[in-house]
Amino acid sequence: MSRTVDIAVIGATGSVGETLVQILEERDLAVGTLHLLASGESAGQSLSFHGKTVRVRDLEGFDFGQVQLAFFAAGRKVSGKYVPIAAAKGCAVIDLASGLTSAQAPRVVAEVNPQALASLSKPYVLSSPSAPAVALACVLAALPLELRRITLTACLSVSSRGREAVKELARQTAQLLNAKPLEPQVFDRQIAFNLLAQVEASDEEGHGALERQIAAELQELLAQPELPVAVTCIQAPVFFGDSLSVSLQSAAAVPLNTLRAALDAAPGVELVDADDYPTAVGDAVGQDVVYVGRVRAGLNDPAELNLWIASDNVRKGAALNAVQLAELLIKHYL
Amino acid sequence: MSRTVDIAVIGATGSVGETLVQILEERDLAVGTLHLLASGESAGQSLSFHGKTVRVRDLEGFDFGQVQLAFFAAGRKVSGKYVPIAAAKGCAVIDLASGLTSAQAPRVVAEVNPQALASLSKPYVLSSPSAPAVALACVLAALPLELRRITLTACLSVSSRGREAVKELARQTAQLLNAKPLEPQVFDRQIAFNLLAQVEASDEEGHGALERQIAAELQELLAQPELPVAVTCIQAPVFFGDSLSVSLQSAAAVPLNTLRAALDAAPGVELVDADDYPTAVGDAVGQDVVYVGRVRAGLNDPAELNLWIASDNVRKGAALNAVQLAELLIKHYL
Repeated sequence: MSRTVDIAVIGATGSVGETLVQILEERDLAVGTLHLLASGESAGQSLSFHGKTVRVRDLEGFDFGQVQLAFFAAGRKVSGKYVPIAAAKGCAVIDLASGLTSAQAPRVVAEVNPQALASLSKPYVLSSPSAPAVALACVLAALPLELRRITLTACLSVSSRGREAVKELARQTAQLLNAKPLEPQVFDRQIAFNLLAQVEASDEEGHGALERQIAAELQELLAQPELPVAVTCIQAPVFFGDSLSVSLQSAAAVPLNTLRAALDAAPGVELVDADDYPTAVGDAVGQDVVYVGRVRAGLNDPAELNLWIASDNVRKGAALNAVQLAELLIKHYL
Repeated sequence: MSRTVDIAVIGATGSVGETLVQILEERDLAVGTLHLLASGESAGQSLSFHGKTVRVRDLEGFDFGQVQLAFFAAGRKVSGKYVPIAAAKGCAVIDLASGLTSAQAPRVVAEVNPQALASLSKPYVLSSPSAPAVALACVLAALPLELRRITLTACLSVSSRGREAVKELARQTAQLLNAKPLEPQVFDRQIAFNLLAQVEASDEEGHGALERQIAAELQELLAQPELPVAVTCIQAPVFFGDSLSVSLQSAAAVPLNTLRAALDAAPGVELVDADDYPTAVGDAVGQDVVYVGRVRAGLNDPAELNLWIASDNVRKGAALNAVQLAELLIKHYL
């Protein structure tokens, strides 16, 4: 493309927003003017972009008519208020806050269902799914299996709860190692050297909102709206990177070598198998691919497949997919 | 019972052995003479029992004819060599090393299948299953469900790998917080602030020995030898206590209130549900019960049940069950 695109990043001071700006630079998008925006208290900070310092301005009062594309990475409340304003100004939107319905904003993962863009009409609004759904969908889309059921235990790092949660894991850990009293703040109890059974309050039926969201996202991304999906999101004492323990049931057994070859060839996926296995910290963090390992059939069910997935929740699971969606939007529409 | 039983504890200096001695005291078994045994290098240490100091002696050359009951908590190699010797002397054995076949030593959990003792004949040799199997079986036995499939992700604490692994988690954590170079020894990579996809090397089909063992134990304990069981054992940066994420498929939906009431009434099980959830560190460690929470049906399958279980792997999962089995053996046979 010859012309440039003026872009706004909302939530530029958060982990995802900051990583997004970094990826925009790395991937050399033809960015015209880059507007960094945040809510009141974060405005005034600045980020570097192509060697220049860009100040983060207050979102309040920003004229979305100045940009052709906006990334929303500031949470549901901000998306709920400002996405309609941006769209009304003709600005294309990529929302990372998961606050929109799939009718309002199709959920798209670049490697999984880019065809969803074919049927878009103005205003162009896309949703980048939750990080666990992005990672798992990249792997599932590669597998030549007729899926009958997904059972997922997603072990989420504290970075999925924001910067304060990252600081709290470090602080709690130091407090425990120094035999000082524990002071939980972001978390409701000890997260250091512990695993929490949920990442948010459960609803009346016992599910967390993210668990419901991941199931719905996978059904949409895989175009299997009736697929049974069991999701348990747990909080692990890990700073960055999600780890997914996945068990799949399929209509028929497929040879493991066929499945491994498919994973080996899949875009956005790296297979680490045989005598090794991937981890969030050792492999996934900072990378543009989803790592998959421990590929094995069921102990007594050949149509069962078990997998382990490690992925950078901030980068691959959020910022990178959003930028990939932007590239698709620019190519097709802007 | 009026008479006392002379007892040997093999592996007395390990976490499980030490906890076992403590529980023998707590539960006030009519212990006559207590012999504490360990392999060469650990001999010479001592433990307290009912206010007296008991020296740990070398297992080599011990005369099992002196005792009526022996606990083996020193690993497969030791059990493999000395259990036959003990049994030949007429000594009843409770093996915690899982090295015997179920034909040699029925696997028993006190709350689950005590009826397995009815068909015992001399020599009395029982196996206490792995800690995750003990915990999960206690919960499953309580549920009025016709199980069709179990999918388990077991997040194991480092204590399941022994005392050196506990020290290593502390050491690695301190090294990382102090920005010093990491020196993995027990683990093959960073375990601090990370999750490892497996707890041991995988076999040719991709399964770990413990994963196979847990599946076989559950099938035996539940008397469902054909039940499909998917097991993934991961290593968590937690010192003590196992956390299990479980998804069950059953023949038909059972109302959640019925299932919760069954868990509430079950021996050895504590339900922490509704607005709370149990954790390994906060609830299970040091306790004689298995904690269960996050009891919920499938998102789109009412015959699916999801659970979270936290249990003390050393105490409830190993030492306590072994002592409970001893109580049953003494009551029925000794």
